[in-house]
Amino acid sequence: MARESLVAGVDLGGTKINAAVVDPKGVILAQDRVKTEAAQGFDAVSQRLSTLVRGVCQEIGIETSALDAVCVGVPGSVDDGSGQVHRAPNLDWTDAPLGPRLSDSLGTRVFLDNDVRVAALGEYAYGAGRGASTLVGIFVGTGIGGAVLEGGELRLGSRGAAGEIGHMVIVPGGPRCGCGQRGCVEAISSRTAMERTLHELAKEGRKSRVFKILDREGRERLTSSVIVKALREGDEVMAEVLRGAQKNLGLLVGSIVNLLDPDVVVIGGGIAERMGDEFVAPIRKVAHRRFLLQRDREKVRIVPAELADRSAPLGAAVLARRKLASPAPALVAAK
Amino acid sequence: MARESLVAGVDLGGTKINAAVVDPKGVILAQDRVKTEAAQGFDAVSQRLSTLVRGVCQEIGIETSALDAVCVGVPGSVDDGSGQVHRAPNLDWTDAPLGPRLSDSLGTRVFLDNDVRVAALGEYAYGAGRGASTLVGIFVGTGIGGAVLEGGELRLGSRGAAGEIGHMVIVPGGPRCGCGQRGCVEAISSRTAMERTLHELAKEGRKSRVFKILDREGRERLTSSVIVKALREGDEVMAEVLRGAQKNLGLLVGSIVNLLDPDVVVIGGGIAERMGDEFVAPIRKVAHRRFLLQRDREKVRIVPAELADRSAPLGAAVLARRKLASPAPALVAAK
Repeated sequence: MARESLVAGVDLGGTKINAAVVDPKGVILAQDRVKTEAAQGFDAVSQRLSTLVRGVCQEIGIETSALDAVCVGVPGSVDDGSGQVHRAPNLDWTDAPLGPRLSDSLGTRVFLDNDVRVAALGEYAYGAGRGASTLVGIFVGTGIGGAVLEGGELRLGSRGAAGEIGHMVIVPGGPRCGCGQRGCVEAISSRTAMERTLHELAKEGRKSRVFKILDREGRERLTSSVIVKALREGDEVMAEVLRGAQKNLGLLVGSIVNLLDPDVVVIGGGIAERMGDEFVAPIRKVAHRRFLLQRDREKVRIVPAELADRSAPLGAAVLARRKLASPAPALVAAK
Repeated sequence: MARESLVAGVDLGGTKINAAVVDPKGVILAQDRVKTEAAQGFDAVSQRLSTLVRGVCQEIGIETSALDAVCVGVPGSVDDGSGQVHRAPNLDWTDAPLGPRLSDSLGTRVFLDNDVRVAALGEYAYGAGRGASTLVGIFVGTGIGGAVLEGGELRLGSRGAAGEIGHMVIVPGGPRCGCGQRGCVEAISSRTAMERTLHELAKEGRKSRVFKILDREGRERLTSSVIVKALREGDEVMAEVLRGAQKNLGLLVGSIVNLLDPDVVVIGGGIAERMGDEFVAPIRKVAHRRFLLQRDREKVRIVPAELADRSAPLGAAVLARRKLASPAPALVAAK
């Protein structure tokens, strides 16, 4: 019997790297993760990524060169043709030659794309958006990323810039966003924005358990796990801040549905992963009110992502196979 | 020589009906218009529409039965399969059998679609958006209508509800919209919204020439022509109100570009028709600032519609030919 074609899908995040070897049916044969340690810089991080992929391959007794390809989802903009990471703010990389570096070290073809795009593709192929004609993915984390898939194809747009859902305006003149503008949904409903709001409320004398939990756990930043713990401990301030974020995400989803009338809106990221529909239901409720066409509301499914930390590696694996099947160089740089 | 295939495209508006006989190359052989007189009700209006089409045909010496088809752009939601107009608020029609009525009277096939959709298709086929991969049309009038075309095909969406750009939220908690929600761009930047703002400012004692012009012309409602006259007469209040509407339209366009990265955004409707780029330039300026990807900004063309009152009849003619070519009944009701 001919050897089965194997690819590796990798999710390169700001805090951890997650890699999986995937068979043609989307079955994960081996998976592992390491911390990114982004502060150690490009050379160290790309070496850790290589070592991780090598280790995952060893688990199933193959060399990395036996992989048909590796595809890496990168938290930033990439040029898949040259294998360059243009700009990845969370890693503090600019014009980093990740593709060639990994290709040399692993002895196989390496493709790059954006992490949110590959996660949305994973949810389309194997998760909450299986078979959707139009899938809108919204990933809420330190920022808010997005992707639009039409018939399973990632929408690139005229400049490769489609899917920047986090920078749709929700509150004109509102809080300043990392992008320099005001009132982007990322500046209002991301975890970073919730953290900022918690600090503002603390200054006003509101008492939140979040800060005690952070102290107790020796953490500085508001993580999804801290949000969930505070809610479980009955923290009213955290609940209020989360409701505000959900309300604005609901307005966002309502606007997107009025524009595109997609069949699925998948909401992912750490909070959605931990809370599931408890996070998504209030978003859906606000969005439903905004639908201009109220008929057949349920045809537009607004649902949590299903694959948790497997969505990006699985989506990257799907993309690797697609790129192998159509070897023309990318004409439009992936963001 | 075989007779050339002719179709008629009709724009049925709340105030006027505009009909054209169009050849296969998109050349208008004859065109005419009449007032809608919507207050006279469905029977009278559909009769006026028939008479108009008959008159336009007479101009070129043919019977209406010699037309291969007539397609009517309706200001509301239609079911093209049954030929029913579901709901057209400006005409005060609900479940009106326009298709069968016209078909009986004209002796040819009649198709229906939404007026904004056909206008966007006209701009795609012959106007400002010729050949666009993704065209977003935004039509600013008494309301704000929209349409998204992908590769020249109207996006219907999962429920036939795509393109409702007027009901994307711009100012949460803002002015009440006709749809019942608050802060839709239609409630902020439409002509109706500008009129409301002018009245509010008048109550605050701000002096606008608009009211004098309305008196002088015996009009009650703020039309595009009145807006332009007031601006030409140097009315600062009108200029300020228009700037506000443009700013919010700019935020809207910026959000849509961040989501879809289209190659063309066509801005139409009466004001755009009269003012051209003088209306669009400030919208483009605000939108440009909101682009997350600043590179190649000019690749996303934000331009006024080019075809004025010919866009909807020409687009309706294109749609008529497409429907003749693929005679399967519509599976999704056009909005």
